[in-house]
Amino acid sequence: MKLITYLKGKEEKIGVLKQNSVVDIKCILKKMGEKNLPESMIDFIKYSDDCKLKKIDEFLKNEDIEADSLDSVKIEAPIPYPERNVFCLGKNYVEHAREVKLTRITGTDIPKQPIYFTKVASPAIGNGDFVKFSTKVTKQVDYEAELAVIIGKEGINIKAEEAEDYIFGYTIINDVSARDLQGKHVQWFKGKSLDTFCPMGPCIVNKSDIPFPVELNIGCKVNGEVRQKSNTKKLIFDIPYIISDLSKGLTLKPGDIISTGTPNGVGMGFNPIKILKNGDVVECFIEGIGTLTNKILEI
Amino acid sequence: MKLITYLKGKEEKIGVLKQNSVVDIKCILKKMGEKNLPESMIDFIKYSDDCKLKKIDEFLKNEDIEADSLDSVKIEAPIPYPERNVFCLGKNYVEHAREVKLTRITGTDIPKQPIYFTKVASPAIGNGDFVKFSTKVTKQVDYEAELAVIIGKEGINIKAEEAEDYIFGYTIINDVSARDLQGKHVQWFKGKSLDTFCPMGPCIVNKSDIPFPVELNIGCKVNGEVRQKSNTKKLIFDIPYIISDLSKGLTLKPGDIISTGTPNGVGMGFNPIKILKNGDVVECFIEGIGTLTNKILEI
Repeated sequence: MKLITYLKGKEEKIGVLKQNSVVDIKCILKKMGEKNLPESMIDFIKYSDDCKLKKIDEFLKNEDIEADSLDSVKIEAPIPYPERNVFCLGKNYVEHAREVKLTRITGTDIPKQPIYFTKVASPAIGNGDFVKFSTKVTKQVDYEAELAVIIGKEGINIKAEEAEDYIFGYTIINDVSARDLQGKHVQWFKGKSLDTFCPMGPCIVNKSDIPFPVELNIGCKVNGEVRQKSNTKKLIFDIPYIISDLSKGLTLKPGDIISTGTPNGVGMGFNPIKILKNGDVVECFIEGIGTLTNKILEI
Repeated sequence: MKLITYLKGKEEKIGVLKQNSVVDIKCILKKMGEKNLPESMIDFIKYSDDCKLKKIDEFLKNEDIEADSLDSVKIEAPIPYPERNVFCLGKNYVEHAREVKLTRITGTDIPKQPIYFTKVASPAIGNGDFVKFSTKVTKQVDYEAELAVIIGKEGINIKAEEAEDYIFGYTIINDVSARDLQGKHVQWFKGKSLDTFCPMGPCIVNKSDIPFPVELNIGCKVNGEVRQKSNTKKLIFDIPYIISDLSKGLTLKPGDIISTGTPNGVGMGFNPIKILKNGDVVECFIEGIGTLTNKILEI
């Protein structure tokens, strides 16, 4: 099941994709006799479990229900306002860790332990939205295609072998980064957190559609040129390890987003580095999820 | 005006302190004829402006209104669930930057630019609550008394000379830190973000009660022993600079919290280091705000 957050006119809705159209989740649930209707994707994640999702899926297959063409709605980030910053991992693919030689900051090329930081996403931007920046703030904007895990169930000290139970689904994040600010401020947070620097989507794919362990082709194109091409099986710290390790002493909650790191091929990995400029089109792709496309706008 | 979030029975309320009692904000606003009543401290911050706060103050002075004794309520963190992680500064007092020689991580002792990271606070804990940790997760828990600025008004690219306009008030944060995790994970986020590691409070003091620039005595005691003793005038990057610099390209929002860094005297600054253990009582003090007291519980 693929879920999106979208605007129909001025109303924000969440819906299920059905071919080239979207069906309002509230319509489905109302017809199924549900009374407590979720107001947002986070609400829906809190509300849903495997059994309820299966029923929705069955209902959609068997019943005729009104749908809106995707052309007639505006797709937003699936979770535009996460309740906590996006949890991110740095240097979680070997070849990426090698291409970025920030040894002054990280001390070692290949991390022995996961490197966690966060990214403000309020709002996260959706497919088709602009990534905006001013050269007064940064002169080195870079892309990072990443698989993001959406947590479905509250948990602390989660065992790696039970990690899948705590996952709701997956989406794509472009962890847009101001490289000059990352260096200048030592800790990475500010360089990762400028307004519009968290494109997310286009949809959340429920975990039932993605075989576990997660081995998906991932890539990124800039103006049609392939820059990143890898597979999520190459993560240094895989999804069960991340969920288990991050949740040690820290409760993960439904709707939390963990962006698992980017493969090699980022702009700063080239010599000379390739920075994003006004008008560039960045497409982040993950097999089974789709393509997240955003244009760069210098303001 | 000093504001708290508190539980009366099971109901969460926000209120204004009046001697040793608290007056429910909703009662005040209702009596003043207000119809849209704020449900949380963040709501109240969004609702209020200097003029409205002055009216509330006048009303409290002149009208007789029901108050609850502080003994009869449970004080919570003033903002238990911030909408974004707490924005934090590292190494923002010279003597503290010198005492912690994390040069492997930060490259230099005295920062040339602010070092920003974030801290999860969901929930932030209140005055009197326990800071809990397991030695399976960390063996090096440390305290950091900090002045925290509460943003009152949305803004981006804020000028330093206009920063005060964007402040709602001030509180105390104990930026509890797992030193071993800070080192192990390279970026500081995880070591700062374990459950219960964000004591906040006891109250928010509106900026009208604190002369600007903010020059307040700040300190911390552990089991009655003075460990930290300084003044916020010693911040390397002062509040106007922080607000101006952090808001470059990043919109600050009402209810955002910026913890401005800790002075020298943290446990890891001693030789040998002094870590917090089961039963320790940590009191963080800031002139004009009050004392935030929390006991350590090994679980």
